[in-house]
Amino acid sequence: MVKRIGFLGPIGTYTEEAALKYDQTAELLAFPTISSVGQAVSSGLINQGVVPIENSLEGSVTFTLDLLISQSGLLISDEIVLPIQHYLLGVPAIRFSDIQVIYSHPQALAQCQTFLDQCFPQATRTASLSTVAAVTDMRNSTIPAAAIAPKRAAALHDVEIIGQDIQDNVNNVTRFVVLAAHDHIRTGNDKTSICFSFTQDSPGVLYHVLGEFAERNINLAKIESRPTKELLGQYIFLVDCEGHREELLVNEALTLISDRANMFKILGSYPRWDP
Amino acid sequence: MVKRIGFLGPIGTYTEEAALKYDQTAELLAFPTISSVGQAVSSGLINQGVVPIENSLEGSVTFTLDLLISQSGLLISDEIVLPIQHYLLGVPAIRFSDIQVIYSHPQALAQCQTFLDQCFPQATRTASLSTVAAVTDMRNSTIPAAAIAPKRAAALHDVEIIGQDIQDNVNNVTRFVVLAAHDHIRTGNDKTSICFSFTQDSPGVLYHVLGEFAERNINLAKIESRPTKELLGQYIFLVDCEGHREELLVNEALTLISDRANMFKILGSYPRWDP
Repeated sequence: MVKRIGFLGPIGTYTEEAALKYDQTAELLAFPTISSVGQAVSSGLINQGVVPIENSLEGSVTFTLDLLISQSGLLISDEIVLPIQHYLLGVPAIRFSDIQVIYSHPQALAQCQTFLDQCFPQATRTASLSTVAAVTDMRNSTIPAAAIAPKRAAALHDVEIIGQDIQDNVNNVTRFVVLAAHDHIRTGNDKTSICFSFTQDSPGVLYHVLGEFAERNINLAKIESRPTKELLGQYIFLVDCEGHREELLVNEALTLISDRANMFKILGSYPRWDP
Repeated sequence: MVKRIGFLGPIGTYTEEAALKYDQTAELLAFPTISSVGQAVSSGLINQGVVPIENSLEGSVTFTLDLLISQSGLLISDEIVLPIQHYLLGVPAIRFSDIQVIYSHPQALAQCQTFLDQCFPQATRTASLSTVAAVTDMRNSTIPAAAIAPKRAAALHDVEIIGQDIQDNVNNVTRFVVLAAHDHIRTGNDKTSICFSFTQDSPGVLYHVLGEFAERNINLAKIESRPTKELLGQYIFLVDCEGHREELLVNEALTLISDRANMFKILGSYPRWDP
């Protein structure tokens, strides 16, 4: 049976590109929201789900963090890192000098500011709901327009690529996670994600938790905090460490943290992305 | 001369409510973005600026964190905590049973989901750009509509309050900061915000930084990470600790952290908000 992989849609987004990069043989299904991808994994409708978790410029995707914290039966089984390359698209045969409006998601418009200032100082920049919706807005526009969108959006519509790699910062990279009912077996080059909270904040608690990793020489890849949604000033911490949860030292550290925490959850062990 | 305080607009938002709560005698000026508030403070156009920094349900306002990290000459001089209370507004004499559309910002719609499911199961929910824009959308609607908005938006327009405190979670609270060229003098009940990063991540660095606070029994109120925007996996940490930067132990801890860090910035010492 063909594996079914859900992704945060619509078709043509960077998340679909990540899902294709991850598995070209699977049947891909677009879902409208991050939480609907999570629900489809939990209910068994799909085998895996691909959602963005972190961008090198914007930071964490908090919807994904909150989903991992709150939904049971949902683990990270893999990660995918994708460079974000923005393209300028236009209707066939449009002339550069005619373009009066540029459509895109506000984030993409902001990320291409230098290019737009240099090449289209006179064009109006108009917000669309997504980079894919920008292509539709551009096609429906009564005045000559262009759209900033992923390359894949050009392939899906009858539009031309008139500019490529137009983002200001070349370090624009998004990390995606593959959600599944189980995490990944040990490969020898793994990462483990956990989350935890404490009933009371004392100067020592987080310090001692990080100490369990430091004492065992386990590198931390990331530390992040999210609100508990109960009281302002109470947080759930998310930590990514090197190693698989089945490795002796990692296992030891996680057990000791779990003993101390009020809430503790292993979000999964999975292979570290190698570009 | 009357003090000039800028705030993230438009007029009628929760941020204006926070600014009014902070200082009723000042001249209040609305700015279109968080960064324009910061620039107006730095340039001396306004004495202080009020922007949201954290919500108990949504987490940090990353624009404000990034502004504090990147803009020089900008410090936190105070904090304000405001309960977020959503109101249902309608045009005068509208009947509950006639309402077919509910306008609001997607976050506010999500925060009132239970109320909407119970009272308006048949009404369409439509996204507006802000809770204040929702009132305009509601007034311009050709079919009977209502809007979810702050109470203050009702006072500014000719609309009626038809429901109050309609949010699902009573723990919906936003913390705002007051930006200024200088931080606050010592009051005896203060907090200090700092940010820092390291050139290389090693298991020990963040652990040892937190150790400087733990050893001196200084409570941490918050720890948060933001991307450096240079490389995926490199972070700037933001820490709020108890005490004023002029207190001996706090000063000692900050000096030692500063010595170890690649980048280090004191974002300000200011009185802890007392409800």
